[in-house]
Amino acid sequence: MHSLTEKALAGSPRALGRLITQVENDTAIARQALTDLHPHTGNAQIVGITGAPGSGKSTMVNELAKEFRRRNKTVAIVAVDPSSPFSGGAVLGDRIRMQDLVGDKGIFVRSMASRGNLGGLAIATTNVTSVLDAVGYDIVLIETVGAGQSEVDIASTAHTTLVIEAPGMGDDVQSIKAGILEIGDILVVNKADKPEARRTIKALQAMLELGHSTKTFHHGKVIETEAVVDYNEWMTPVVPVTSLTGEGIPELVTQVETHYAWLKESGNFDAHQRMQFEKQIKKLLQAAVWEKLNGDQFEALLEQVSERQLSPHAAIEALLKLL
Amino acid sequence: MHSLTEKALAGSPRALGRLITQVENDTAIARQALTDLHPHTGNAQIVGITGAPGSGKSTMVNELAKEFRRRNKTVAIVAVDPSSPFSGGAVLGDRIRMQDLVGDKGIFVRSMASRGNLGGLAIATTNVTSVLDAVGYDIVLIETVGAGQSEVDIASTAHTTLVIEAPGMGDDVQSIKAGILEIGDILVVNKADKPEARRTIKALQAMLELGHSTKTFHHGKVIETEAVVDYNEWMTPVVPVTSLTGEGIPELVTQVETHYAWLKESGNFDAHQRMQFEKQIKKLLQAAVWEKLNGDQFEALLEQVSERQLSPHAAIEALLKLL
Repeated sequence: MHSLTEKALAGSPRALGRLITQVENDTAIARQALTDLHPHTGNAQIVGITGAPGSGKSTMVNELAKEFRRRNKTVAIVAVDPSSPFSGGAVLGDRIRMQDLVGDKGIFVRSMASRGNLGGLAIATTNVTSVLDAVGYDIVLIETVGAGQSEVDIASTAHTTLVIEAPGMGDDVQSIKAGILEIGDILVVNKADKPEARRTIKALQAMLELGHSTKTFHHGKVIETEAVVDYNEWMTPVVPVTSLTGEGIPELVTQVETHYAWLKESGNFDAHQRMQFEKQIKKLLQAAVWEKLNGDQFEALLEQVSERQLSPHAAIEALLKLL
Repeated sequence: MHSLTEKALAGSPRALGRLITQVENDTAIARQALTDLHPHTGNAQIVGITGAPGSGKSTMVNELAKEFRRRNKTVAIVAVDPSSPFSGGAVLGDRIRMQDLVGDKGIFVRSMASRGNLGGLAIATTNVTSVLDAVGYDIVLIETVGAGQSEVDIASTAHTTLVIEAPGMGDDVQSIKAGILEIGDILVVNKADKPEARRTIKALQAMLELGHSTKTFHHGKVIETEAVVDYNEWMTPVVPVTSLTGEGIPELVTQVETHYAWLKESGNFDAHQRMQFEKQIKKLLQAAVWEKLNGDQFEALLEQVSERQLSPHAAIEALLKLL
């Protein structure tokens, strides 16, 4: 075991930060560390938080973290921003919004940014989450900034996924959103002090009642992974909160804890975990296959396909031989 | 060359239908046919049509096809419905909605349905489109039913992507839709005879003017394929149509033709085509790698990872050895 891994396991935040940088850069040290840390994982509750810009996610995540701390849980926050070129723990924005939490050793905050590759970001986020789980954080909050499918996919790698809505944003029946609502284990209406919030809450409840018609999206996705988890028994709650005053946050944290307890007690936890590992291994295998292929050889084949000298299927045969 | 391929190339609609069934089932005959047909591809304009349920896509596609026929272009329609278990040319719904077109040999209609695997459906759609291109259809219209990211991805494999909106559906600033608007080369407001249509048109135009803030989504996607195409020069038009009366359809077809001419003249066509082939080859390679892996061996490894006896990275090493 590398000394960085040992020190991170022993509780050094500095070693942890450095190890995470290694993981982000996908170094040999990181790969060894992930293998060494794997037996230590499986104890944290991973919570994904997704929602459109303007829904007030960051403030809410901050409040969630504080409430978990009040309940004596240690918390790590991974803020994923695919549109930001900044990465690392020292991002100014984090420091500012997390100033209430500064000095608390039971909390760890990390920003992750895209380096022009969303697939790589998803893998890195999963790996960083595993490290935080292994070193002993009770709760890992993965906050994804943005509202594209990729951000949603990242958030849904969690045990529990919160989808945040704000009044005036989710009031219409937007079929496009069905997929996003579908992945939410808990729907949160932020800014619940606004008068329009009641309408948003009602609209979300109506959508949940329409569940049968929206399930298609979910099934479409889950079938693809060939491991259907029966979520039917969990009744998705709609929780109103006002992050600015903290109102509703304790109830939300209780719902998050209840969902985790339900996963464990219903027997869905193991199936869920297996499905997540399956997804992760598929992604890693895809990345590993690309890594083994020589870029120049691929470009040459692509050129031949574009020129109609070689069919895509013949190119695949050639690529498989190169592996 | 298989006799089915020869007959399809010679213009037999019956052979074409049977060949497409082979392609849908991914048979050895199909793979050989795709290789044999590849040199014949590259002449059709592929047009993707996407939009939420209720936007009136099917009627519009029907009208588009008729207008292309009036301009002496032959047209193939591929209607992709991931939520339908029905597939093949003989779907009753198609027959009904296409009755105006029955008896016209310059038109070919095909429904494609999911068999529980969206990834497979995307590959099959690309392959069917290649066959239709190779046998000489001037225009291939890919209509995707549904509004999830996968449907959008399928539509965006085209040269020209139409995003259909209907009044009352796209009036609010829905950040979630930014990604969908972003992939549209032409935005179509259907049901333009409705009084609310003006508002929808204005909202879409305003969103297009906000282009800079929405570009992020597009870049996120395109960067991933490592081949950035400069679309900035194409000014996305918003075209009002009323499919039920046919009003606006000739203008829409002219826009579709203009986009194709722009692709060719701007030099973007080759880069676009290369990017599409790159995406296709990556998808095919992923599928081929899975095909080579033994399901039982994969399950055994997954079990060990879930039990924390093996790390995901160690599982990848083992899988690569199995390839």
